Amino acid sequence: MKSILITGISGFVGGHFTRYLLNTKTGYDIHGVSRSEPTWDFIGDKETTLRSITFHKCDLLDAAKIHTVIQDIQPDYILHLASFSSVAQSWTAPLTSFLNNTNAFLNIVEAVRLQGFTTRILSVGSSEEYGIVPERDLPLIEKRAIVPENPYAVARVSEEYLAQVYVKGYNLDICCTRSFNHIGPGQSDTFVVSSIARQFAEIAIHHKKPVIKIGDGSIVRDFVDIDDVIRAYDTILTKGVSGEVYNVCSGKGHSILDIVQCLSGLTQTPVTVEQDTALIRPVDNPVLVGSYDKLHRATGWTPGNSLENSLEKMYGYWHNKL
Amino acid sequence: MKSILITGISGFVGGHFTRYLLNTKTGYDIHGVSRSEPTWDFIGDKETTLRSITFHKCDLLDAAKIHTVIQDIQPDYILHLASFSSVAQSWTAPLTSFLNNTNAFLNIVEAVRLQGFTTRILSVGSSEEYGIVPERDLPLIEKRAIVPENPYAVARVSEEYLAQVYVKGYNLDICCTRSFNHIGPGQSDTFVVSSIARQFAEIAIHHKKPVIKIGDGSIVRDFVDIDDVIRAYDTILTKGVSGEVYNVCSGKGHSILDIVQCLSGLTQTPVTVEQDTALIRPVDNPVLVGSYDKLHRATGWTPGNSLENSLEKMYGYWHNKL
Repeated sequence: MKSILITGISGFVGGHFTRYLLNTKTGYDIHGVSRSEPTWDFIGDKETTLRSITFHKCDLLDAAKIHTVIQDIQPDYILHLASFSSVAQSWTAPLTSFLNNTNAFLNIVEAVRLQGFTTRILSVGSSEEYGIVPERDLPLIEKRAIVPENPYAVARVSEEYLAQVYVKGYNLDICCTRSFNHIGPGQSDTFVVSSIARQFAEIAIHHKKPVIKIGDGSIVRDFVDIDDVIRAYDTILTKGVSGEVYNVCSGKGHSILDIVQCLSGLTQTPVTVEQDTALIRPVDNPVLVGSYDKLHRATGWTPGNSLENSLEKMYGYWHNKL
Repeated sequence: MKSILITGISGFVGGHFTRYLLNTKTGYDIHGVSRSEPTWDFIGDKETTLRSITFHKCDLLDAAKIHTVIQDIQPDYILHLASFSSVAQSWTAPLTSFLNNTNAFLNIVEAVRLQGFTTRILSVGSSEEYGIVPERDLPLIEKRAIVPENPYAVARVSEEYLAQVYVKGYNLDICCTRSFNHIGPGQSDTFVVSSIARQFAEIAIHHKKPVIKIGDGSIVRDFVDIDDVIRAYDTILTKGVSGEVYNVCSGKGHSILDIVQCLSGLTQTPVTVEQDTALIRPVDNPVLVGSYDKLHRATGWTPGNSLENSLEKMYGYWHNKL
């Protein structure tokens, strides 16, 4: 029996990963930690899922508590998903963002190091680590310089560097990702694509005016479907090389306006777009597109979902929920 | 009247900087914070120096307290010296090292940002940020990639990236240094050169066996005299360009064995060297030498003290103290 500890299990990625483990694997003792119990309104069989795992209510900034939890579980794997993952919110609360990313990670690796466990850990980073990127550097490969340009990105870069030091200096077993923008049902509408999908659902259900509010519509991101992300994390946990960093991405770029257009087509709803200056960030990347070549070569992973497919699931989620 | 806040004022660099300000400038309202009151056994006129400043007892991890201190002072300048600055100790206490570097810095810049002050801040970083360096990259220039290889270096890189984000995203006025190994009288003997100087003084005074214990004697560092460091920090505070990073170094490399030899010559004491494996670090740089060209071009600064000169002062300090 292998044991796995999923931090931030109550979140969007945590819920999808838990459901995936239960659906596709046997012989896993699944533990989750989070500050709050899972609600997971995006999982059909939520109650069954909850009964199949052990949930530990714990703030990852509580070093003593996380030490005890890890001592009790002695996990073979830790999937560290807990994070303060909004770039926009990191500008308004840079200190909270930093603590809840970097210090939370440090508490976990310290618990593993001090207890001498051989746990394989997956540290989830972000495409934001690459910073403002000229077009000639696209698609981004892992060897490119990282230049974090917002508080969230700095925290992610710090975590990645800490991971490298724990691998080389203390012989811990850690793989890292630079994950590009996830999208999928259940994602908070503080993230732009989920917000747009929600606005389309509101137009359909609440007969709102067909106006979509966005920040800068021209920014281009590499949106990767949550189901593809989950498979990538599972693959890296089992087949990744310790100390290595892997992009997790779709390899394709789409602008925010593309998202609006695609959802407009899918829902057959003509809309106008309104720019909300409050959603514009102090410093932002015009374009971020990744290459998943390294991950593919190491593990055979490829993304399986199209943008249309993801947006359809997200629209369906909000349509059901509202 | 200009006001300056020196964090970590009770330390080695803090004491030297305070004495320098009082000796060379007028019209400065000098404030210092530290967890403990200055002892400064390396300053001749310690009591006069203490009476000439305002001391605030404060842990920089106490965000609320540091906010109030900065609110009261409204400093024109902040020289942020407080740090957990030992690489060796960062390997045994990585969490403490990280918190006392990165989070302390964040509390300061947050206090300045949230109160809208136009304070010029100097963030002190380290040559350790460059990582393991091939000989062809020497002397190191600021444009070279940074690859932190120990917990202390990760914290310093994180602080530098945070500083850049606060400059670009919030318009704060921050200059950064990558300071190479300081040496001078009053430095703790947890640092290698001070430890060697102390051992030579012990041989002379306590008639100890002429054996010098060191870690890896072959490692080469760029040792820069404390008086030169102080002048560099003053110069950057007044003439540096916001957002820029400056090496503070001597431009010359010396091995640990060179230090032993030089002190052996200065004190006319033949010694043997004993390697203490406890002093060897998990991952270490064989050679680190910097270029101060950028700082020189920007401000005219050049180092003024030779290695012999520094070692003589350090030996004298330990000789008096023991």
